[in-house]
Formats: sequence, structure tokens, C-alpha cells
Amino acid sequence: MMSLETGDNDLAAVVTDKLHRARRAARACATLSPSEKNAALEAMAVQLWEQRTEIVAANDIDVAQARVQGQTETRIDRLILTEKRIQEMVEGLRQVQDLRDPMGDILEVIERPNGLVIHKIRVPMGVLAMIYESRPNVTVDAAGLAVKTGNAVVLRGGREALHSNVALVQALRQGLANAGVASDAIQLIDRTERESVDLLIRAKGLVDLAIPRGGAGLIERVTQRALVPVIETGVGNCHVYVDGEADPQMASRIVQNAKVQRPSVCNAMESLLVHQAIAATWVPSIAATLNTFGVELRVCERANAILEAAGVAGLRVATEEDFATEFLGLVLAVKVVDSAAEAMEHIATYGTKHTEAIVTENVQTAEAFLSTVDAAVVVHNASTRFTDGFEFGFGAEIGISTQKLHARGPMGLRELTSYKYVIRGVGQVRG
Amino acid sequence: MMSLETGDNDLAAVVTDKLHRARRAARACATLSPSEKNAALEAMAVQLWEQRTEIVAANDIDVAQARVQGQTETRIDRLILTEKRIQEMVEGLRQVQDLRDPMGDILEVIERPNGLVIHKIRVPMGVLAMIYESRPNVTVDAAGLAVKTGNAVVLRGGREALHSNVALVQALRQGLANAGVASDAIQLIDRTERESVDLLIRAKGLVDLAIPRGGAGLIERVTQRALVPVIETGVGNCHVYVDGEADPQMASRIVQNAKVQRPSVCNAMESLLVHQAIAATWVPSIAATLNTFGVELRVCERANAILEAAGVAGLRVATEEDFATEFLGLVLAVKVVDSAAEAMEHIATYGTKHTEAIVTENVQTAEAFLSTVDAAVVVHNASTRFTDGFEFGFGAEIGISTQKLHARGPMGLRELTSYKYVIRGVGQVRG
Repeated sequence: MMSLETGDNDLAAVVTDKLHRARRAARACATLSPSEKNAALEAMAVQLWEQRTEIVAANDIDVAQARVQGQTETRIDRLILTEKRIQEMVEGLRQVQDLRDPMGDILEVIERPNGLVIHKIRVPMGVLAMIYESRPNVTVDAAGLAVKTGNAVVLRGGREALHSNVALVQALRQGLANAGVASDAIQLIDRTERESVDLLIRAKGLVDLAIPRGGAGLIERVTQRALVPVIETGVGNCHVYVDGEADPQMASRIVQNAKVQRPSVCNAMESLLVHQAIAATWVPSIAATLNTFGVELRVCERANAILEAAGVAGLRVATEEDFATEFLGLVLAVKVVDSAAEAMEHIATYGTKHTEAIVTENVQTAEAFLSTVDAAVVVHNASTRFTDGFEFGFGAEIGISTQKLHARGPMGLRELTSYKYVIRGVGQVRG
Repeated sequence: MMSLETGDNDLAAVVTDKLHRARRAARACATLSPSEKNAALEAMAVQLWEQRTEIVAANDIDVAQARVQGQTETRIDRLILTEKRIQEMVEGLRQVQDLRDPMGDILEVIERPNGLVIHKIRVPMGVLAMIYESRPNVTVDAAGLAVKTGNAVVLRGGREALHSNVALVQALRQGLANAGVASDAIQLIDRTERESVDLLIRAKGLVDLAIPRGGAGLIERVTQRALVPVIETGVGNCHVYVDGEADPQMASRIVQNAKVQRPSVCNAMESLLVHQAIAATWVPSIAATLNTFGVELRVCERANAILEAAGVAGLRVATEEDFATEFLGLVLAVKVVDSAAEAMEHIATYGTKHTEAIVTENVQTAEAFLSTVDAAVVVHNASTRFTDGFEFGFGAEIGISTQKLHARGPMGLRELTSYKYVIRGVGQVRG
């Protein structure tokens, strides 16, 4: 185990102490039965509801501070906890109870000629570190998934939600204690200095997996500085490619959904690629539709010429940076391409390996796209918005991985597990 | 894609160019059929044998330099390539051909109520970076496993083996070209400045997985500085716990094998824990046995007292550091414990999560050990030396992972793969 270095001994002592407690609790949680874990989740749910008044009162402080700081209404809305939202958290913890417990699954049995029997079995990851921004529901979601999978979790939420998180974690830990489970399995780092993140992600031997959830800046910082294994989540510069042989109405429906149904999330479309064979008729029509939703288009020269010919003038010409940007809002970059191959080349250059979709009636073109494009999720004739743990039927989600190691795409319970090999012998030695 | 930063523009340009070439080749390799990949492996094997004279001549330069530098005979032996060793490499490439190609495996099919059909399918990782020390056979092993799994590989071997690696990679790339496969799928970084390692492990977007293989110093440096995903390999502070209810003869056989059969490797035993109930009789006997193999014991106070009573004096008392050390040689730390629980506590404190074994006839004690001890491989009544890809029946091995993310224990073909989700729809959008 590494010693943790920091300029602030007190902060380091606080974080290290919580990590050691989590480590010890993780060892105890690893051997809990499915029903013991579900009883703990139920006790957490009961306690959240029991303490809803205190939680809302604590949240009021965070919301008042956010208003003083002049935060946007969108951010304030994400922060607010009401009795109804606490009820949703309680229901979330009950839904997790209903999920199948994957722990102890036998993934493989190998019998060797020398008589050794090797079982590959699913085990908890150990200690998870969640590093996230504002939304306090992540606190409850992450704690619930950690308990269900026999892991301990160390939570480091954003400064804006500190009072809310303290109140939520107090209730969750009380729930664990009521169920006779080590309350140290849920830890909140209640210090919001940036250094507390560094201490978590550099705690080799104490943290088995760090998951950053938030903006590109947070994720970049965590991967830059981490010494522990990290799963990158979320940054989605997702494309829809509308092929020359697309059904135009299906293409419009999918593009509209992918862009406007919830533009602020990672699986929303950011760039639209259109085959030249269909562009002259279809681009003006989709531009008109998107215009009614207030979507700003940033268009390539060819799309611009088509739109000008159709009487739409004054659009901003897309720069290379536009094609590389995750707008997370009502902005869309548009490019006309000569072929599916050009579309795939564009995606290989600008994509973030999150979700990439093709709309076409040509099965061969579709299959080439699905097999060639390198992304967590590739989609034929459906919206990019389906990349989501619930939409996949996982019943829960801790994030969407955009890396290739360990977990790719929506991460549910199984993605919070590891495995070990158990060898049983009768005295075998190696020759 | 990040730009690569370095003080030496020329070196950065060389490494970046090779990474871009590997990236392009990886896209082509991802769609090769199993028989195309096997034809490439066969062509690599043929070409290695064809160029054996040039390879041995290049190796002679490395060996001569190692002698001038006064390297130990053990290290020189690991470096030497003879016609026989090249024959073994050729056979290794043929064995990889015989392994089942896991690419394209359908890992899961999910049918959703909205009619979406989601396939989870195995895909190559993309670009692998191997960073390793001296042994030139790693060059051929890694290239063979990469080609079999449809990955590209960028090799950064040790300075001592540079001429050998250049000759080997020249032959392997020629083999790929002869088989009509992009020779850029195998790249050698032939610059041995330390900075070339940094450039590889910081190339986010260009390298999908870095695997360091070598001493603890190399692995520490790579995990400290990497921005790309890394799998830690190899450091094994492995224990054997001889329980009070162990069969003494079986315990002796296992302990002897785990310590002396090949002491320089990561799955050799480094510490022996003995239950006090058996210690007084069994410790003197195993000490005598190990003495005949030249093993130096470093013993706890209680073991020392037992051995002194048996007439063995002057042993070094084990320090805390001894219990934390991977000796990789004929040294063994010995500790008498009061219980299996104390043994497990010791392992939790000093182990490196590689391989941990218990010897006992008590099945309950064994099962508690197997389920509680957190390591890649846990063993009942067999030697720690079985943690090995070939011994597991994987047919090949690129290293032994000691982390919990993605791959744990021996890594074969499957551990060099990722997966993606393929969604097929008929125009579905999210409500």
C-alpha cells in the first residue's frame, strides 16, 4: 500500500481513514448473502424516507447557496430535492433489490489433466470511488448499486450538493447499521477541496476502481492524475449517418429524437452526416423540423448551398471544432458526405466511441457500418438515445463507459464486479 | 486525440507516426477472418525460420554488449537466441494458430419490449502497447497473440535486446506482408530512451491498452505516468499457509515446489505461514528440506525459537520488510500464526493479490480461505506455481494480471478483447 502524499496532512488523514474503513467494510460485504444485501437496501430505503424532512432541509441550504451564486435554473433544478424526488430514490433502492444478484456466479469451470479443478467465479470489485458533480441522486444510486454488489463505496460529490449529500449518506449509513451491515461500506468525503479527489484516485491498494461522472473537464483531470484503475464515462460526440438509401421519414423521426428529446445528455446526437444522394431533398426538410425545436445548425459548405437554394440563408458554417464538440444542447453540426465510407472515416476521426447510428434500408451498408465503426454502441435504424442501462434492461446504471477495458457502454451490476480463480487440488505440484 | 508532448520532437514524431500506422492497421485487422489471421501467423513463423541466421547474428551483438557491461549469466541466458530457441518461437506461433478464435463471439442477446435487438459481441481491443524487459521471446509471443486477436501491437522492448528485436520484428512484418496483411499491425519502437515509454503510455486515443511486463520498478513507473488504460502484471508476493490440520507430507511437497522449482518467477512462494499446532514438528522438517536446496530462511521469533530448540541456530529474524518483499530467489520469510484468521489477516496486509494457497485437510477451513482471501488465484492443496496461462489450459499467456479491472490472473486471447453492443431496429425512438 502506498502512503498518500499531500500538502494538507489533515485532509490526507481524513481521506485515508475513510478509505481504510471502506476497505475493512468491503471485506465483510463480500461475504453477505443476497438476502442480507437486500435487507440492507430496504433498511436504506426506509431510513431515507424516515429522514426526508432533514434531507430536504439540508438541500434547502445547498439550493439557497446556488441561488446566491447565480447558478442557472437548469443546474438548480438538478440540485433540488423534494419529497417526491426522495420517494423516487426510495423506489430506486427497491428496484435494485429486485435485480438478480450476480455475485458468486460461476463463469467457467476448467478441469485439467493433472486433476486440478479451476472455478472462475464472480466476486465484488472491492472499494469503488465515485467522483461526480451536483446531482444528489447519484449518491443514492451509487450507494445502492455498491451494496447490491458487495462492494464498499467512497463518494466524492460536488461542492454544490455537500449539505444534501451529508444528509443522504447519514440516512443511508443508518440504514446499513439498522440492518446489521457495516455502515463503513458507504463513505462520503465531505471535504470539497480538489485535493480530496487526488487523494482518492492516487490511493493505490485502497481503491480498486474509480469512476468519474461529470463533464469532460472532470474526467480529463481524473484520468490524467489517477494511479488507480479508472473507467472513463460519458463523453459522447454521437453521430447519426443518414444513408442515400434511408427511409426519409424514419430518418427524420430518428434524427429529431436523437437531437431534441433530451439534448443535455451524453447519448444525444451532436453531428448529422447525410449522403449526397438524399441531401438535396431531405436536408431542407429536417432543417425545417429542427428549426421548430429551436435547434441551431452549423453546416458544411455543401449543406449550406443546399439550404440556401431552399431559401434558408445565414447559417453558421461548421468549423472543424464544431465537428469535435459535444454541444450538450440545441446545436447540431451537419455534413454532407459522398459515401458511407466517408461517413465512417469522419466518425473515426471525430467520434468519442460512445454511440454511432446509421439509418438505411440497405442491409449490406448497415452491416458494414455496424462491424466497422468502433464504438461502445452501434445502431441501425434507431435513435442514439437508447444507450442507457435501463433501456438495455439492466435495471440500473452507474454510468456509460467510453473506454474498451473491462466495461463498455452502459454499466450495470456486472460491470461493478471482478472475478477470481479458485483452484482445488489434492496435493499437485508443478513438474 | 491528444497531442503528444515531449522535449524531443524527433522522438515524439517517430512514436506518433508508428502509433497512427498501428491504428490504421488495427482497423483493417479487426475484420480479418480466422483463416486469414492463421495464414498471417503461419507466414510469420515461416519468415522467422527463413531469417534465423540474421536474427542470431543480431542477437550476438546484444549478447556481446551484455557481456561487456558485465551482466549476470542469468540475464545473459534470458537474452540469448539460438536456432533451437527460434524453433521454439516458430512452434509457439503454430500453437496460437490452433487456438479457437474468440473474435465475433456473441456474448449476449437482449430482446427489448420495443422490438430492439441488442447483440453484445466480442471485438478486438484495437492497439496494444507492450512494454517489457530483456527477453526477446516476448516480442514474438505478443505479436502472435495480437495478430490472432485482430489487434495491432506496438512493442517497446528493453535496450539490451534492441538488435534482436529489430531483426525479429523485421521478419514478423515481412511475414504479415507475405500473407497480404498490413505489416503496420506490428510496430517496434526502436528508440530506447525512457521518454519513448512515456509517449506510448500517454497516447490517449491512439493506444487502447498498455501492458507493462517486467520488474516492480517498470510497472510502478508505467502506472504512475500512464494516461491510457493499463493492466498491471506480475508482482507476486505469494503465500502458502500450512494449516494445523494439513497433511504434513503434502504440505512439504507443495512448499518445496512453490519455493524451489523456479524461484525467479512471479508465482513462486515468498512467505510461508504455519499454524502453531503443527509448527513444532513440521517447521524443523521443512527447514531441513529447504536447506538442501540452498533456501535462506528469514523467520519470525516463534519459528526461530522452534528451530533453535531443534538445533538450527543463527537464522536471520524476519523484518516487516521481509514479509513485504518479492524475493524472486532462494529466500523465504516464515511466520508462525495462531489461526487461519491470522494467516488471512497477514495475507490481506502483505499480499499483492496474485496467488495465495492453503494446505489443509479441513474442508471448512479451506472454503473459508478460498472465499475470503482477495487474490487473482486462490489455491487449496496445490502449488502456487500453477498460476499460468498454459497450466490453466489457455494455450498462451501475455501476462498475469494483479488488478481487478478487466482481467485477473493469467491473460490469454480473450483478455486481449473488448466487446461492443450492436442494436438493430426498425425506426424506434425513445419516448
